[in-house]
Amino acid sequence: MADQKKMVEDITSMEEDFAKWYTDIVKKAELVGYTSVKGCMVIRPYGYAIWENIQSILDGYFKATGHVNVNMPLFIPESLLNKEKDHVEGFAPEVAWVTYGGSEKLEERLCVRPTSETLFCEHWANVVHSYRDLPMLYNQWVSVVRWEKTTRPFLRSREFLWQEGHTLHATAEEAIAETEQMLNIYADFCEKDLAIPVIRGRKTESDKFAGAEATYAIEAMMHDGKALQAGTSHYFGDGFAKAFDIQFQNKENQLQAPFETSWGMTTRMIGAIIMTHGDDNGLVLPPAVAPYQVVIVPVAMHKPGVLEKAEELCSRLKAAGVRVKLDDSDNSPGWKFSEYEMKGVPVRLEIGPRDIEAGQCVLVSRPNREKTIVSLDGLEEEVAKKMQEVHDVMYQKALENRAARTYACTSLDEIREALEQKGDGFVEAMWCESPECEEKVKEETGVGSRCIPFDQKEIAGTCVCCGKPARTMVLWGKAY
Amino acid sequence: MADQKKMVEDITSMEEDFAKWYTDIVKKAELVGYTSVKGCMVIRPYGYAIWENIQSILDGYFKATGHVNVNMPLFIPESLLNKEKDHVEGFAPEVAWVTYGGSEKLEERLCVRPTSETLFCEHWANVVHSYRDLPMLYNQWVSVVRWEKTTRPFLRSREFLWQEGHTLHATAEEAIAETEQMLNIYADFCEKDLAIPVIRGRKTESDKFAGAEATYAIEAMMHDGKALQAGTSHYFGDGFAKAFDIQFQNKENQLQAPFETSWGMTTRMIGAIIMTHGDDNGLVLPPAVAPYQVVIVPVAMHKPGVLEKAEELCSRLKAAGVRVKLDDSDNSPGWKFSEYEMKGVPVRLEIGPRDIEAGQCVLVSRPNREKTIVSLDGLEEEVAKKMQEVHDVMYQKALENRAARTYACTSLDEIREALEQKGDGFVEAMWCESPECEEKVKEETGVGSRCIPFDQKEIAGTCVCCGKPARTMVLWGKAY
Repeated sequence: MADQKKMVEDITSMEEDFAKWYTDIVKKAELVGYTSVKGCMVIRPYGYAIWENIQSILDGYFKATGHVNVNMPLFIPESLLNKEKDHVEGFAPEVAWVTYGGSEKLEERLCVRPTSETLFCEHWANVVHSYRDLPMLYNQWVSVVRWEKTTRPFLRSREFLWQEGHTLHATAEEAIAETEQMLNIYADFCEKDLAIPVIRGRKTESDKFAGAEATYAIEAMMHDGKALQAGTSHYFGDGFAKAFDIQFQNKENQLQAPFETSWGMTTRMIGAIIMTHGDDNGLVLPPAVAPYQVVIVPVAMHKPGVLEKAEELCSRLKAAGVRVKLDDSDNSPGWKFSEYEMKGVPVRLEIGPRDIEAGQCVLVSRPNREKTIVSLDGLEEEVAKKMQEVHDVMYQKALENRAARTYACTSLDEIREALEQKGDGFVEAMWCESPECEEKVKEETGVGSRCIPFDQKEIAGTCVCCGKPARTMVLWGKAY
Repeated sequence: MADQKKMVEDITSMEEDFAKWYTDIVKKAELVGYTSVKGCMVIRPYGYAIWENIQSILDGYFKATGHVNVNMPLFIPESLLNKEKDHVEGFAPEVAWVTYGGSEKLEERLCVRPTSETLFCEHWANVVHSYRDLPMLYNQWVSVVRWEKTTRPFLRSREFLWQEGHTLHATAEEAIAETEQMLNIYADFCEKDLAIPVIRGRKTESDKFAGAEATYAIEAMMHDGKALQAGTSHYFGDGFAKAFDIQFQNKENQLQAPFETSWGMTTRMIGAIIMTHGDDNGLVLPPAVAPYQVVIVPVAMHKPGVLEKAEELCSRLKAAGVRVKLDDSDNSPGWKFSEYEMKGVPVRLEIGPRDIEAGQCVLVSRPNREKTIVSLDGLEEEVAKKMQEVHDVMYQKALENRAARTYACTSLDEIREALEQKGDGFVEAMWCESPECEEKVKEETGVGSRCIPFDQKEIAGTCVCCGKPARTMVLWGKAY
């Protein structure tokens, strides 16, 4: 227990300093390592295993909806980046420039891709000719670079890993349907796999992706009441296609520009998992993406038969497709309990001599430490049930946090008061759709517009800022 | 048949112009797309699907031998690259340099990683303290950049995709065993999954990886008799560890430097597959990595029941874990035959009204077009058998090509004569181990040393070049 105490003490309490708590977790749980490459991170095995599980699940959803993977170059020539005006204005200030190849200065400098719309468009201009070539439903898993000033592991770094989907369609309707479909896939993934409830909505004009006609996003609330944008899906209309001369012969034998979308989800989601589910004992990982879903801790391991039984259970769970780790090291059970709590393993399985005698074992749920004694006969089913319970408990807890921290407000004073008295959270308030009011709400209350939720409520009939008639409810909040 | 003829005519014959044949294949089979990013390529869906299958198989082998995946930064600060003298000398001339972040000039320029030894070492210096932390068995799947002058899709490009394994061990013996283990995994992968026979060996001093004590490699022979290095595995001793101050407390409580390895395989393997197995009708893909292992072509599709039966067979094969495509498009069966031959699909399944009546279908092997009539009852088993046959035929063909083009020579004249009369190939000849003779063989005959095969033969008692006593057989060849 001395060991356990010590380990827990090393993590700053969430209530005391949430930012420090976050940094402690990513370090103690060995998710990232620091490096001399400023603003970049090493993703260590335990962190990368979470990302591999995220990739594997999302990639399955993408393929099930007809998407295929490709790989575009890492670099974008400056002239190519410059082809779409809004896009280059949005990204040029934050790209890294390659100016030398070996000892030779390049004739044209190349940026390290901050996103790849321009590369996909150039490729499509070469290969798309007829409506028979459409739709193009492409995705790639790569890293991108944006020269951020202040960085934090997973949340904001100069290089991050992501998938970027890019699609091209014969009609605007089809492209819009794709944009919506992908947002829904992201939302379902967050809720059903990561146990993170999200709000689906549209970004305001000021917050759109550079070059997009519409940006849809899902917003999640972190434990501290701040918002985290968890995934975005953009509809481009035919603007990019026109800028890049992509044309196809439609069914009426006429040349026309196709319609485009893009959508992305990043390693940021690991940050979202930490800040949604973590507690003062460390990480709490959703079973769907946990590197180990179950850790087996043998108790009184020196007693005859205990280790053998633990190994047998480990093999059984592996055979049932469970990601399971047996810790048969010399460390005390107490040390192991606290170590795997800190690492967020969803279910702990304890087995000792008395359990074996009784033909049972103990399953402990990470989020609420609830213990269940289960029969070894039906272990596979019991573990599956426990994992589902863990997921449900996590989702419910996050939902309750969000409900307790969501404030419907009808004036700037109400917003300020709610935030002051109840702490950071989501504000639901009406908006007249003027950029000035959007800006003023942020200046005067500190919360910016996160999105216009698809699921609208009528909080009032007038704008929270100017008092003029308003029919649009905006979700406001402080953002990561 | 008109269509079929046309398509085949578009591919240059191998005998006529092997280089042009290669370029035609990568373009016609839609493996890559050209881009305005000089020396880089777009890997299109059909090409990327091959890479995904390669990744999935190799990653399984790596994990089965205890390796875990991580992700290191894309960039290396110049001072970090400079830490190991031999390494920087090898790579500095061919790296791309980032000098600006947004509009600000960087204080220290960053190279885009050409390989990541320096980053792994920096990380290990931070996290390795005790023998209990060893071994570190890491791998990453990323892209790297080397500023090549002349480039060809898959074979040599400025950016390429690869995996780079990096491991750290307490003893030299263990590190050497790892280096050998990984070379054997690569060799088995080539032979058992890609049907490419390889020769395992050690590189000569002049051909070692920058900074390595020993480089092991596998060499494959392409259809035209040239050599392609298919995978490398390096043993570094403790040189990097010392340069980067990595130290651990050993079991005797003393601080010591650990021993390191690295090993890599790249998208080059797609080029190797094309040039080992392809023919004048197009690609020939090994079943293990083919995006589609079977294509179903319905014959007389308009007749009642044909399409339904084709769909049923497709579902059955899918359920059996076969990657299968049913082409129910309006194109003629002849067009489809030639299209999927060109795309290298290992097995074609033809089904028409008469087959259905007889409860059978036709399986056609891509490499030799051998037709087998099989009963629909045991289709899953028959297809599995056919795929194994396809693999075996491909491997045998490649082996025979290599045997026919391998020349044991005892003098420079013999080498010149063999190459002139029988064409490019592997030369087996003795070498006295002097760099001068190695250089002279290349200058005078055109073949350089590929490796010193583990499997040595005694071709003669004297060096092929200087005539002095020699006990080392070298494999010589022209390389891609």
